Amino acid sequence: MAMSERVADNIATADRLVREAAGIGAQIVLIPELFEGPYFCIDMLAEHFARAFPVEGHPTVAHFQKLAAELNVVLPISIYERANNATFNTVVIVDADGAQLGIYRKSHIPDGVGYTEKFYFNPGDTGFRVWRTRHATIGVGICWDQWFPEAARAMALQGAELLFYPTAIGSEPPDPAWDSSGHWQRVMQGHAGANLTPLVAANRIGREVGRAGEREITFYGSSFIADPTGAKVAEAGRDEEAVLTALFDLGAVREMRHSWGLFRDRRPDLYGALLTHDGSGSR
Amino acid sequence: MAMSERVADNIATADRLVREAAGIGAQIVLIPELFEGPYFCIDMLAEHFARAFPVEGHPTVAHFQKLAAELNVVLPISIYERANNATFNTVVIVDADGAQLGIYRKSHIPDGVGYTEKFYFNPGDTGFRVWRTRHATIGVGICWDQWFPEAARAMALQGAELLFYPTAIGSEPPDPAWDSSGHWQRVMQGHAGANLTPLVAANRIGREVGRAGEREITFYGSSFIADPTGAKVAEAGRDEEAVLTALFDLGAVREMRHSWGLFRDRRPDLYGALLTHDGSGSR
Repeated sequence: MAMSERVADNIATADRLVREAAGIGAQIVLIPELFEGPYFCIDMLAEHFARAFPVEGHPTVAHFQKLAAELNVVLPISIYERANNATFNTVVIVDADGAQLGIYRKSHIPDGVGYTEKFYFNPGDTGFRVWRTRHATIGVGICWDQWFPEAARAMALQGAELLFYPTAIGSEPPDPAWDSSGHWQRVMQGHAGANLTPLVAANRIGREVGRAGEREITFYGSSFIADPTGAKVAEAGRDEEAVLTALFDLGAVREMRHSWGLFRDRRPDLYGALLTHDGSGSR
Repeated sequence: MAMSERVADNIATADRLVREAAGIGAQIVLIPELFEGPYFCIDMLAEHFARAFPVEGHPTVAHFQKLAAELNVVLPISIYERANNATFNTVVIVDADGAQLGIYRKSHIPDGVGYTEKFYFNPGDTGFRVWRTRHATIGVGICWDQWFPEAARAMALQGAELLFYPTAIGSEPPDPAWDSSGHWQRVMQGHAGANLTPLVAANRIGREVGRAGEREITFYGSSFIADPTGAKVAEAGRDEEAVLTALFDLGAVREMRHSWGLFRDRRPDLYGALLTHDGSGSR
């Protein structure tokens, strides 16, 4: 979906698309990252902090809690969260009965021209979590998290049967010719394949211009669903609204995951370097 | 390349192909896993332990040390290593002057029908290493290691500019219709993209029948080279001998890797689950 400036319009669009997905059988529906409005991280402007609200009493979350219960669908809801003086890029996990199961705060915060998220978001402090929803045990990362094999693995190790990534990514303002969409898909296809876990990524579409008019981003859509071998089984275009669905037999996937043996053959005793920034064996 | 029973023939084939690669400019050449002979792990037979020899004085390694020096190429040489009562699936890193830089012992050992490696190999004890060769700093994993994001990441964190995986993989004896080649490629493409590090995988070709005649494997080739976004830039067929080459500007790759920011934005403080088998936060 594309986002406009008016929160109510974006909620209405997401509501319509969730209903469409549920109508064709979806049980877990992923709306893109920060769908309440434009991708404000295109600029560094203090006024955008006013977009952040606490989880408690959050009207957008409340809207989709009602919808989840009505449709019996699980909805990870991406918001800009204010928590006292901290601000986070957060997903609230809404179960299919409308209950909040908890929150995940984006762990990996990007910073580049047009994607100046370090200005807006504290690095998440929840760690990677999984959620035993009515329809499956799911893991949810947020956008930049999707580039990190560690995040996908941490969720898979905790039993995630499906991985979800709400996203906002498109062109690079310093180099409009640069198209990361293939790179973006391949890295997540790798997570799906390495964890033998289906993966869903939902990105926005549309061209957005910063408040200052200096930068613009064309979000490239290309939302997709990967199967447990990393093959794409559904994929949206670059500039059209779309509802993608796929059906996975989680028992069959689990059998395949066990028999392939990767989670049996891991060597945690040799992974110490992963807990460092520079590969030094010691912390 | 395909392998036959006679070690001398396989050495001659590998020698010819290394010369061909060097002739078209290759500086680092990857020969497939255990190229001295058939993939004996298709059966569990005590007689195959006689194929293991110590690194010191190993005639195949010595052969390729001479060749490396003659051609000024780096050669990771895959052997079945005997070390007292232990046996490992090992790569000896031969620098372009013919010197041995050290060894890496395969960390992740598979076990499945036709791939009964746990019968033959101790789990490697060297950990993941990188090698400052004359032509680049390289990381080398061995076959099954290629399925583990942790191995690729550990090598990239230590400064690997290129990742190499000698391989022996093909059909699954219990289900000849099962073709893992796409899965296999996608997982490694994911490593390349997630680490912004080019990656080279060399697999064998040919049909091999176990000594007992009960099992056969058709190795599917499909050797490939991925660029730092995970895109395939060279790929071999499934049943033909091939020499693949690609040229990477390692300085340009490093600039891209830094500017993309993944190694800046990692969160080692949140990766504790990776050091467990079951995702429990504590060890």
